Amino acid sequence: MDRPERIALRVGLGPGGEFDLIRRLVGGDEMLPQGVEVGPGDDAAVLEGGWVISTDLSIEDVHFRRSWMSDREVGYRAAAAALSDLAAMAAEPVGVLLSLGMPEHDVDIVEVQSGARDAVVAVGGAVLGGDLSRSPGPLLVDVVALGRTDRPLLRVGARVGDELWATGSLGAPAAAVALWNRGGAPATALRGAFVRPRPRVAEARFLGECDGVHALIDLSDGLAGDAGHLAAAGGVRVVLGAELVPVAEAAVGALGAEEAASLALHGGEDYELLLAARSGSFDPEAFAARFGLPIRRVGRVEEGEGVWMEENGKTRRLERGGFSHVRGDDR
Amino acid sequence: MDRPERIALRVGLGPGGEFDLIRRLVGGDEMLPQGVEVGPGDDAAVLEGGWVISTDLSIEDVHFRRSWMSDREVGYRAAAAALSDLAAMAAEPVGVLLSLGMPEHDVDIVEVQSGARDAVVAVGGAVLGGDLSRSPGPLLVDVVALGRTDRPLLRVGARVGDELWATGSLGAPAAAVALWNRGGAPATALRGAFVRPRPRVAEARFLGECDGVHALIDLSDGLAGDAGHLAAAGGVRVVLGAELVPVAEAAVGALGAEEAASLALHGGEDYELLLAARSGSFDPEAFAARFGLPIRRVGRVEEGEGVWMEENGKTRRLERGGFSHVRGDDR
Repeated sequence: MDRPERIALRVGLGPGGEFDLIRRLVGGDEMLPQGVEVGPGDDAAVLEGGWVISTDLSIEDVHFRRSWMSDREVGYRAAAAALSDLAAMAAEPVGVLLSLGMPEHDVDIVEVQSGARDAVVAVGGAVLGGDLSRSPGPLLVDVVALGRTDRPLLRVGARVGDELWATGSLGAPAAAVALWNRGGAPATALRGAFVRPRPRVAEARFLGECDGVHALIDLSDGLAGDAGHLAAAGGVRVVLGAELVPVAEAAVGALGAEEAASLALHGGEDYELLLAARSGSFDPEAFAARFGLPIRRVGRVEEGEGVWMEENGKTRRLERGGFSHVRGDDR
Repeated sequence: MDRPERIALRVGLGPGGEFDLIRRLVGGDEMLPQGVEVGPGDDAAVLEGGWVISTDLSIEDVHFRRSWMSDREVGYRAAAAALSDLAAMAAEPVGVLLSLGMPEHDVDIVEVQSGARDAVVAVGGAVLGGDLSRSPGPLLVDVVALGRTDRPLLRVGARVGDELWATGSLGAPAAAVALWNRGGAPATALRGAFVRPRPRVAEARFLGECDGVHALIDLSDGLAGDAGHLAAAGGVRVVLGAELVPVAEAAVGALGAEEAASLALHGGEDYELLLAARSGSFDPEAFAARFGLPIRRVGRVEEGEGVWMEENGKTRRLERGGFSHVRGDDR
């Protein structure tokens, strides 16, 4: 696997109004500046020297509610989500820049900072700087994640004939949110999946060293949405197997099989890894033993476009079922 | 001037509660990670390969009001403020990552994006990526600025005997805010100083090439506050000359000499440059002719600590008079 040489193409994004806005944001046909190897559209930008950089804004009452979690968990979760973008590039975290917008009352900002630092230190990085402001309302946490790799794994690269694999199990964070939104209290396993996600940094570094792993993304928008990004970036069709989707057991227990399966597809914020790889690129049992985390085949890559679901011998195209955590509505 | 070799010291910050929080944020005694040459406390972090990176969060009703300016100006100003951090390091801008939090109604997000892109393109950079979210209230713009230099100019380095110099004139942006806060409408020159600041990128690159320029910062917190950062970082005392402070004429015309002088010292958001340099390091007339921008001696560097003001032969220590633009109160 070679290092990309100034990938000037614009990486494709899956369908959806949010992505239309991002397409506008990053502009059209400009060439990348000198020194920039991967630009807009992937999980992070890649700079000469192997630097990988991403930014992620967490907003109270959009990405989380403070009634759900402690101030320390708010900081941890915001940083972990940003660090997951580094994992998505198979990069090694170096540090973060932390911008905080503090409401006047009732937030222990030192706890927010400490939580963010917990997440960074857990993956071997440090807090390298930041910015503090007042906020007129919501608590705001913007995390710039900085990492390094000489072999970034991009969204681009899925090939016809590849297998699609996912780490861990899916749907637990969205199940926690669904329960909170109904006035319930998620059990420990569900709550922990939302408030203490673990960015899959070491796992991604391992996969980045495996020949035959062609494309990688982290699962932040939900399996269907992120598979759509891989498909669009690669110019291919992705076919998921309905019985292959690794639905979190705790979500099934709390909400039943049907709703849990829907959240595993569309809930998002799982911060697991999704990859396209040539068959036999790695040993899934050795992976599971090494990291204490399952990795499972969830589908395959074909000629065509979009994300499809194979169920009972029939294949149908998946609509993008965006789901907003805090409001529980489509976005 | 040599490139710094992993400056592991923590750069000193001036006094003030906001800076106590930043001190906590960036932690205590940890060494910088491998590959990080300048860490917390300066205007930006510096990475191996000469990459310079900074993040700046602009929040509606804290940093600006939408009744004061168009959506495009909001985007421009947020990006210009972030790019000024690159100027403060004498770095060449490469691009920005733009995170936007959009209120549900009444904001033309494409205009905000276009304004930010205007600011970046004006200094030769590009939009390299970003992140879009809803916001439950205020419009949010976080700009990560990325630049490059093999000779960063830091806050550290002011030497006893140096002269202190500032570009441009000061106080006009704060005067515009003061007028808005009183229900008035600032004249074009004052309004423009607030909504269209010009990051002094080319000027800083020039100064970075001058032997004898020892320390550089951009004027975002006000001359008194930023001189305090230079003093603390250098372990020196800075003495400003009362008659040397370049107060913006438009501010004097609108608010009178006394208030204008106070805003030039404490108002902030001028985005001019403040530097400590050996006498004769550059030709101020050639600088002014080249950039169409005056550069003036505003004081000197002595043994000691803190920021002092010399007036009518007497020297008194300046208290840090922080000033919040939007509220018009001390912070």
